[in-house]
Amino acid sequence: MHPTMDTSTQSLREHDTIRAVRWQGDRLCLLDQRLLPAEERWIECLNAEEVTQAIRDLAVRGAPAIGIAAAWGVVLAAQQGAPLDDVLATLRAARPTAVNLMWALDRMKGRIAAGAQAAALEREAQSIQDEDLAANRHMGELGAALIAPGSGVLTHCNTGSLATAGYGTALGVIRAGVADGRINEVFAGETRPWQQGARLTMYELVRDRIPAHLIADSAAAHLMRSGKVQWVIVGADRIAANGDTANKIGTYQLAIAARHHGVKFMVVAPSSTVDMATPDGEAIEIELRHADELLATGGRRTVVEGARAWNPVFDVTPAELIDAIVTERGVIERPDAMAMRAMFGQ
Amino acid sequence: MHPTMDTSTQSLREHDTIRAVRWQGDRLCLLDQRLLPAEERWIECLNAEEVTQAIRDLAVRGAPAIGIAAAWGVVLAAQQGAPLDDVLATLRAARPTAVNLMWALDRMKGRIAAGAQAAALEREAQSIQDEDLAANRHMGELGAALIAPGSGVLTHCNTGSLATAGYGTALGVIRAGVADGRINEVFAGETRPWQQGARLTMYELVRDRIPAHLIADSAAAHLMRSGKVQWVIVGADRIAANGDTANKIGTYQLAIAARHHGVKFMVVAPSSTVDMATPDGEAIEIELRHADELLATGGRRTVVEGARAWNPVFDVTPAELIDAIVTERGVIERPDAMAMRAMFGQ
Repeated sequence: MHPTMDTSTQSLREHDTIRAVRWQGDRLCLLDQRLLPAEERWIECLNAEEVTQAIRDLAVRGAPAIGIAAAWGVVLAAQQGAPLDDVLATLRAARPTAVNLMWALDRMKGRIAAGAQAAALEREAQSIQDEDLAANRHMGELGAALIAPGSGVLTHCNTGSLATAGYGTALGVIRAGVADGRINEVFAGETRPWQQGARLTMYELVRDRIPAHLIADSAAAHLMRSGKVQWVIVGADRIAANGDTANKIGTYQLAIAARHHGVKFMVVAPSSTVDMATPDGEAIEIELRHADELLATGGRRTVVEGARAWNPVFDVTPAELIDAIVTERGVIERPDAMAMRAMFGQ
Repeated sequence: MHPTMDTSTQSLREHDTIRAVRWQGDRLCLLDQRLLPAEERWIECLNAEEVTQAIRDLAVRGAPAIGIAAAWGVVLAAQQGAPLDDVLATLRAARPTAVNLMWALDRMKGRIAAGAQAAALEREAQSIQDEDLAANRHMGELGAALIAPGSGVLTHCNTGSLATAGYGTALGVIRAGVADGRINEVFAGETRPWQQGARLTMYELVRDRIPAHLIADSAAAHLMRSGKVQWVIVGADRIAANGDTANKIGTYQLAIAARHHGVKFMVVAPSSTVDMATPDGEAIEIELRHADELLATGGRRTVVEGARAWNPVFDVTPAELIDAIVTERGVIERPDAMAMRAMFGQ
């Protein structure tokens, strides 16, 4: 991966919506999300291996954005005559939990099987990206319509432009809800250990001048008790056939606290996040990442030598704690296997 | 406050139990808890103002330790002929939530009203400190007796030797439970934003060779669902007359998740933490600290400029979510106003 600072063409300031994943015809440019907000540095991926590395190292993150980046990785491999089966397998293994990655690669694989060459694959990847943006806009309207005017909302992790082709999933609903006066105030959890809420969501909210406060993840229940929020709105990395939802660690804890306080809980994700082949949450692999993500902060060890850590980065929220699943195909209230099957087939 | 590195007399390694608050006859030495575990630096407080500052700045923290430090602050003032009424008022205002501070100062005030001079006040402060250590040992036995052999436990914040005269409250129960084979494994939440769990509790656990894992605060519910913990064990900053308990932000969220999973919830605190004059949790003042504690990490800004944060550092857990309150006077299971009154009078 090659750092670049070509801000003349790539500055975030030029665009209404941040585009963190940008195809340049023969390379993929990714806004390095590990450095935000301190630094807006772009990295250039010149081949599929570099895309794989960027996904694995969290330079690009967010389930939809990972899928889109992987599709562009396949295009690079096709342009360079690399063995596509190997590339598909390597990209697929880069992160285990988000199913959008597998979905995007399956879509590229289908085109390859049908004989598509590099140019056709490039069009397919562009479609994946364009459809994601359109889906986000549509989900924004659908989700916002569920929220009563004057509400406060709490979100977790980053589900905005940085995590998608643009606009966002849960953050898209928040953008739409703020725009039409339904949402007065937004709270964002820090989202330890990577601080996607603190670093990325607050970056997007401040940039959009949306009234927002950051909170410690563990302040959420106290916030709910205070009556300041009416909805928790989150994204998803995988939604099983019964509506059980894998998402960033901490989501499940928020869902339990929300139910305890009568606060509503909304999951917003494109239909590419739905995995009807996974019957329920028990069947979803939860990625464990390195203990150092908890034991060190900003490269500096903060915990005593010899200490161990347990670092699952996703958890599963059972469908019964979810009030609404919003995809671009529509809204499922009180999701269960029957309602999911009615909308997503299988 | 005056940094000192006189490790010949003050090294932690010499002692079985860490003593973070040490009276030296004409000064109070405090192990600076903001720097641990990276650095074991002692600060010397030469007068009551410096003690007040150390409490306000979190150089000394933990409800019992704050009370003990404040008592020594009064002794310094008495030795130096400072106006004791002013000193009592200033110390009292240093932190609003922990009632042990008020309790220790009221005890010193009672002695002053009875005509005690500096030497008698010194004996009183020493008694407060010695009684706290004895209470912790006794609570350790009482609390551990509630735990079935082979259990896993989760704790929050730091309630160990660093937060008390020694041994600890919740961490004292954990020490006792590990010693007699009831506890097999300990999990500690990071406790954002100050990371008392990551920095201080892991430091004590590793030092005592207790099998332990650090977790992100928001991983607690996922941990409980996995069946790895049977008890959540926490300290307290104030226990109201009906058993409602103020403690570090995040405690309430853990109590909700524990009840959801059938995990038991234990509060461990000396009786000086019980405030029968406060009828319930609604009447407890919750300290809000500066937004910068969330917006910056290790002195470096991590969140975009212009962002705001909401930083309550305590919350209230209602008595109905608490399975046992353990003080040195005994155990109250399923606490309520009647059971509290029976043990603590009015």
